[in-house]
Amino acid sequence: MSDAPKKVVLAYSGGLDTSIILKWLQTEYGCEVITFTADLGQGEELDPARKKAEMLGIRPENIHIEDLREEFVRDFVFPMFRANAVYEGCYLLGTSIARPLISKRLVEIAQEHGADAIAHGATGKGNDQVRFEIAAYALDPAIKVIAPWREWDLTSRTRLLEFAEANQIPIAKDKRGEAPFSVDANLLHTSSEGKVLEDPGEEAPDYVYQRTVHPEDAPDQPEFIEITFEKGDPVAINGEAMSAATVLTALNEYGRRHGIGRLDLVENRFVGMKSRGVYETPGGTILLEAHRGIEQITLDRGAGHLKDQIMPQYAELIYNGFWFSPEREMLQALIDKSQEHVTGTVRLKLYKGLARTVARHSEHSLYSEAHVTFEDDAGAYDQKDAAGFIRLNALRLKLIGNRNARIKP
Amino acid sequence: MSDAPKKVVLAYSGGLDTSIILKWLQTEYGCEVITFTADLGQGEELDPARKKAEMLGIRPENIHIEDLREEFVRDFVFPMFRANAVYEGCYLLGTSIARPLISKRLVEIAQEHGADAIAHGATGKGNDQVRFEIAAYALDPAIKVIAPWREWDLTSRTRLLEFAEANQIPIAKDKRGEAPFSVDANLLHTSSEGKVLEDPGEEAPDYVYQRTVHPEDAPDQPEFIEITFEKGDPVAINGEAMSAATVLTALNEYGRRHGIGRLDLVENRFVGMKSRGVYETPGGTILLEAHRGIEQITLDRGAGHLKDQIMPQYAELIYNGFWFSPEREMLQALIDKSQEHVTGTVRLKLYKGLARTVARHSEHSLYSEAHVTFEDDAGAYDQKDAAGFIRLNALRLKLIGNRNARIKP
Amino acid sequence: MSDAPKKVVLAYSGGLDTSIILKWLQTEYGCEVITFTADLGQGEELDPARKKAEMLGIRPENIHIEDLREEFVRDFVFPMFRANAVYEGCYLLGTSIARPLISKRLVEIAQEHGADAIAHGATGKGNDQVRFEIAAYALDPAIKVIAPWREWDLTSRTRLLEFAEANQIPIAKDKRGEAPFSVDANLLHTSSEGKVLEDPGEEAPDYVYQRTVHPEDAPDQPEFIEITFEKGDPVAINGEAMSAATVLTALNEYGRRHGIGRLDLVENRFVGMKSRGVYETPGGTILLEAHRGIEQITLDRGAGHLKDQIMPQYAELIYNGFWFSPEREMLQALIDKSQEHVTGTVRLKLYKGLARTVARHSEHSLYSEAHVTFEDDAGAYDQKDAAGFIRLNALRLKLIGNRNARIKP
Amino acid sequence: MSDAPKKVVLAYSGGLDTSIILKWLQTEYGCEVITFTADLGQGEELDPARKKAEMLGIRPENIHIEDLREEFVRDFVFPMFRANAVYEGCYLLGTSIARPLISKRLVEIAQEHGADAIAHGATGKGNDQVRFEIAAYALDPAIKVIAPWREWDLTSRTRLLEFAEANQIPIAKDKRGEAPFSVDANLLHTSSEGKVLEDPGEEAPDYVYQRTVHPEDAPDQPEFIEITFEKGDPVAINGEAMSAATVLTALNEYGRRHGIGRLDLVENRFVGMKSRGVYETPGGTILLEAHRGIEQITLDRGAGHLKDQIMPQYAELIYNGFWFSPEREMLQALIDKSQEHVTGTVRLKLYKGLARTVARHSEHSLYSEAHVTFEDDAGAYDQKDAAGFIRLNALRLKLIGNRNARIKP
Repeated sequence: MSDAPKKVVLAYSGGLDTSIILKWLQTEYGCEVITFTADLGQGEELDPARKKAEMLGIRPENIHIEDLREEFVRDFVFPMFRANAVYEGCYLLGTSIARPLISKRLVEIAQEHGADAIAHGATGKGNDQVRFEIAAYALDPAIKVIAPWREWDLTSRTRLLEFAEANQIPIAKDKRGEAPFSVDANLLHTSSEGKVLEDPGEEAPDYVYQRTVHPEDAPDQPEFIEITFEKGDPVAINGEAMSAATVLTALNEYGRRHGIGRLDLVENRFVGMKSRGVYETPGGTILLEAHRGIEQITLDRGAGHLKDQIMPQYAELIYNGFWFSPEREMLQALIDKSQEHVTGTVRLKLYKGLARTVARHSEHSLYSEAHVTFEDDAGAYDQKDAAGFIRLNALRLKLIGNRNARIKP
Repeated sequence: MSDAPKKVVLAYSGGLDTSIILKWLQTEYGCEVITFTADLGQGEELDPARKKAEMLGIRPENIHIEDLREEFVRDFVFPMFRANAVYEGCYLLGTSIARPLISKRLVEIAQEHGADAIAHGATGKGNDQVRFEIAAYALDPAIKVIAPWREWDLTSRTRLLEFAEANQIPIAKDKRGEAPFSVDANLLHTSSEGKVLEDPGEEAPDYVYQRTVHPEDAPDQPEFIEITFEKGDPVAINGEAMSAATVLTALNEYGRRHGIGRLDLVENRFVGMKSRGVYETPGGTILLEAHRGIEQITLDRGAGHLKDQIMPQYAELIYNGFWFSPEREMLQALIDKSQEHVTGTVRLKLYKGLARTVARHSEHSLYSEAHVTFEDDAGAYDQKDAAGFIRLNALRLKLIGNRNARIKP
Repeated sequence: MSDAPKKVVLAYSGGLDTSIILKWLQTEYGCEVITFTADLGQGEELDPARKKAEMLGIRPENIHIEDLREEFVRDFVFPMFRANAVYEGCYLLGTSIARPLISKRLVEIAQEHGADAIAHGATGKGNDQVRFEIAAYALDPAIKVIAPWREWDLTSRTRLLEFAEANQIPIAKDKRGEAPFSVDANLLHTSSEGKVLEDPGEEAPDYVYQRTVHPEDAPDQPEFIEITFEKGDPVAINGEAMSAATVLTALNEYGRRHGIGRLDLVENRFVGMKSRGVYETPGGTILLEAHRGIEQITLDRGAGHLKDQIMPQYAELIYNGFWFSPEREMLQALIDKSQEHVTGTVRLKLYKGLARTVARHSEHSLYSEAHVTFEDDAGAYDQKDAAGFIRLNALRLKLIGNRNARIKP
Repeated sequence: MSDAPKKVVLAYSGGLDTSIILKWLQTEYGCEVITFTADLGQGEELDPARKKAEMLGIRPENIHIEDLREEFVRDFVFPMFRANAVYEGCYLLGTSIARPLISKRLVEIAQEHGADAIAHGATGKGNDQVRFEIAAYALDPAIKVIAPWREWDLTSRTRLLEFAEANQIPIAKDKRGEAPFSVDANLLHTSSEGKVLEDPGEEAPDYVYQRTVHPEDAPDQPEFIEITFEKGDPVAINGEAMSAATVLTALNEYGRRHGIGRLDLVENRFVGMKSRGVYETPGGTILLEAHRGIEQITLDRGAGHLKDQIMPQYAELIYNGFWFSPEREMLQALIDKSQEHVTGTVRLKLYKGLARTVARHSEHSLYSEAHVTFEDDAGAYDQKDAAGFIRLNALRLKLIGNRNARIKP
């Protein structure tokens, strides 16, 4: 097959499914396979992935294992949080935002190795295939993408296991049966979907939640924390400066302890169907609340309303996989421009599943007690101005009223 | 003064401030005063308002006391909730949505009585003056509006009390001192602002919250309820059909008990300044979560995303006082069109300040387990379609990639 | 092939290409073919299509020929013009708006005949396949769509002609060679693309324009016409009431004579590539100018700006083929709501390629000479109101100025 | 009057009206007056303004006369044209875009001189007062603004002339009577409004147009020109490089000669009323057409549609006077980001009032003949991809169709 890939970079987790893919690529296409395994904070050891790859015959120089946590948070998560991005009113985009970075590294590694293709383990029904591939095509228009789940005939659990056994791929005991749901995790969130979650009319079982304690089990006393922002990004917790990934890791621990960031959602996939997911975004949920809190005093109304207005579109672009698109970059330029003064500290109360802003302070504050006070304002504001303001705002409506009276005799 | 009002309809609460206004209108303008007192669910008896008005010399036929709760919820609150409207990411618009109805009745009563003016007790710094007046001008372009707080010289507490005493207006003991904050309430929410809340860097004192228990004092066991919607509006709780105002009253009680719906916010007023408010919207917060929940399965993606996109603008229009404007009505037509199938039942978990959707069911559901399942889907969806879908979605980005490669040699 | 169509409704023009498709459907699938030929104002006789279909063996009861001009203009073109819809700043959507109606009739005829499929002659590179098919799937989710150009191996002109000859399909002499460009026409417009137009750096040859005289050849004297609107739709020209299709036909003649409505455009197709087209929309161009003219005096600012804001999205939906989608219907509800008072008469000057509004009159006008006049306005407007209006509009910017001065010492 | 200005910078044209204002400021407030006269390309000599100011007693060091044409075009006009900004579908914002620059210089000169106020000659009914003052307040929150037309009692022509005579202000003969309409001009446009134009149902008299020949008098032969862009701005005409102001001046001459850029419009003022204006924007109209032409081949669809979507809001901000606002700057960041590759050359045909793009060329072109061709495309595009693309785009609509069939038995 002239179109067959010769050298493929595979997004490799070390788990059973991507090990099968690895082998399938070798047998189906006879191509050289390069593995790429990234630490995005999913909370798994990476060493086993190296050993597994070696065992499957990958040469050491073809095994790439990288800790991308700082880059992930600094260049993807934080820019997105500057926008207060939520998809469909609720979802913090934890899976969506990780995909472009993985594709970027896949393509870069392919270019280093002179590989002509990349491969991923996402299915043909989901969003992740779209995100991986659109990002890859944007970064290298000539790259081939192999998506085995859309191609092969290993369409049942039984056939997958047969293939694994026939190819000496070790199968962990707990992988013999089917998982009751499937999971994706990174430093920002854990998502669960499928199987036991497929009926949106049934409450998700408790055991689905893995990253946060049940609010009922959270401490009976609230905890207060202070998050400090500089130009829209969190840089310190309770006064202690931290790197990007460290801030998010710390917020995850606060959130986990207090049962914060759980979401049970039916969402609309880009491929056209609805799906039900359970998300846990402990640190991200706290961060969103805090970022809104600091914007409340540092962001002008015009800037804030413009951000609110374009946010759904920005979130949709990320959800649909268009991180590396001109329009996402244009919106990012708009958002980043707004964050110049989003600097200051927010105090939050964490309690039983909720993170609430209770106070905020900033040298860059636009809040003017002199203007708003019910007390004597020493001339900061002339209440009589309001009469003219109202009359001219109402003028066009008065003209409508006059017109309507005139034509309805 | 030829421009002086001859007959004025006053929005009259029966409290000290509007009683002073009543007297001031009589003395300043020598005009006839008609009082209008509405029950919007603020939780106060209206009989005292009648007695107080009579005592201040208002003739019985000039005293209007009305229970507007059903109209308020049915024609204002529920249409707004169809839009999932929140202002600046957080505020459920509890005060904003009540003002147009009050203005509507003020203008209608003025027309019945041949009055040439209306009057209200809102200050010159806030949003409410704008909302009252824009609505009034839209409904009757010729109406005069008297806003005593922008006109008179009773600019200190001392002078107000002196005026009251000089005019035999009774002063309740607890009104001698100044309230530590000011309150507005109706069936949808209670808002508190001013005085002790003026420093947004200070946490709001516990005693500010009046309508909900502290989450820490809420039951240690979660409670589950089911809300049934028809065409976007809630019509039953736990299977029991209820009128509009009754649904909201019942949800308020659930919310109160579980400490749900508290918000501490710095917001941007239409008149140009930032202000800090504490809001309690117990039933509304539950309703918003439930409405989003039922939309998740009954609303198409295109419809839902369009609603998300125009929502901030719709909320801003209500916040700014433009309920009776063509553009609000146009947006309402768009929103209402989307709600035809928003019918079904949502199950929520209420616990310690949080209301979370845990399940939803609808005959109108667009969720297709056949399409989304990880299991065999019997041909509902051909995964190979995704390849073409992705490639054509990526095509323009590939062309950009090619262009960029071409011009950067 | 179990998936093969049994009975197919074909969008049939009577031309060579769709005659080949007809035969190919019969031979490839052995299926019964029903033809549908619509008069959308493309300016061709339909009788030959009937004869041709009969000659190709279609039974008389399977031949559908319909005059859809009134429905086309009334239910598709005019609703779209209420929105002042233009795609990418220029294109009046003449082809896009015709496709949904054709699909609607194809699906309805399929249902009448118990057919399981429809077929069209659009290629795999263009927008029309998308428009035909999305509309069809929306109206009948179970329908099959056959798009021969994406399936067959008749991929060159030579092979097409061989197939035609082998199947006794008559070939008109002027169809032996390849056309220098391809054309689509209906009552709203004529579009030309391909071949001689493929280089956007080359000016389109004069002979491409077929529907309008060259502006240089248009009359040396301008002509003035008056168009009367009711609720946003044109109902009379120069005082003479006309049906929808008759109005558009008359405007086309005015436009043709004065060389109005030519457009040379490079546009972005939904499938991801850019294409260059030449459009002639004589009547539509006049209509758009006139509709804007009548809206200028009858539409409120809030309504008009909201329409302007959502227009690009509405146009994109139509361009991309989503006429029968919830979001298009929601936007239509918004637009139609705005047109209640768009009633009145516009006077236009037509001259050498340009249609310009020169005067407008309406009983529903919101224009108030009393307010705008430089002369004495008898108190309609108090100029002092403007000071307060400006000061409160500027307040937030002043607070920014103060903040910036404070933090930059 | 403690609030009275001590030193005022006046926007001074040298004409009768601003000379009266100058004198009135001196007599009313007894303040020192500094004059500022700018050449924005309005086509008037500035020397007379100096002499007039001197004659009215202004000290030489208090007279500022500046040629701002390059700054005006480079920093205001061109950034705006990058957005293809038009207000209400038609107006190229020629007056709006000049005001912020004048305010900027007024404020800067005030700061140099330690002046506490600025003054302008705009009336209390128009947009210009808003634009001048919002810009001034944004740049210097402490500045006072004197708007004599809102303050004084010189409310009739007779009284103005009396004041002029009483104060030895020379009155040109042609200023004795009232002008039949009022004019504003700069390098971008000339606007005319008032008096003879106040009835929008009457065609504007020919003599109103001053800057362009009547299309009927324009050359009978079309003229072709080529405009070259770099990053969204025009830099050369017919291959000849020019400065910003020189390009616009040259385009104005082309436009003037061919009668291009006339507009008769009823627009919505920010202060709430409709007004009728006649605009002539010869060079700007050509520039807008050309900029759209070059964007057609160099701008990606996602980028272009996002620009189209936010354009009305951007234009409204400029129209309303919010050039110096965070949201305008945010939108500018978005727009500028899009223009990186908007580089190339557009060929236009100018004839009898129309400027039409007929060809475009760019090294940065995204147009791919290989993809779009009807001929063999050598595998650039696989038409079969379209089937999957369409099916997944239609999937949600199919699910709606299924739902609707299910619930309507």
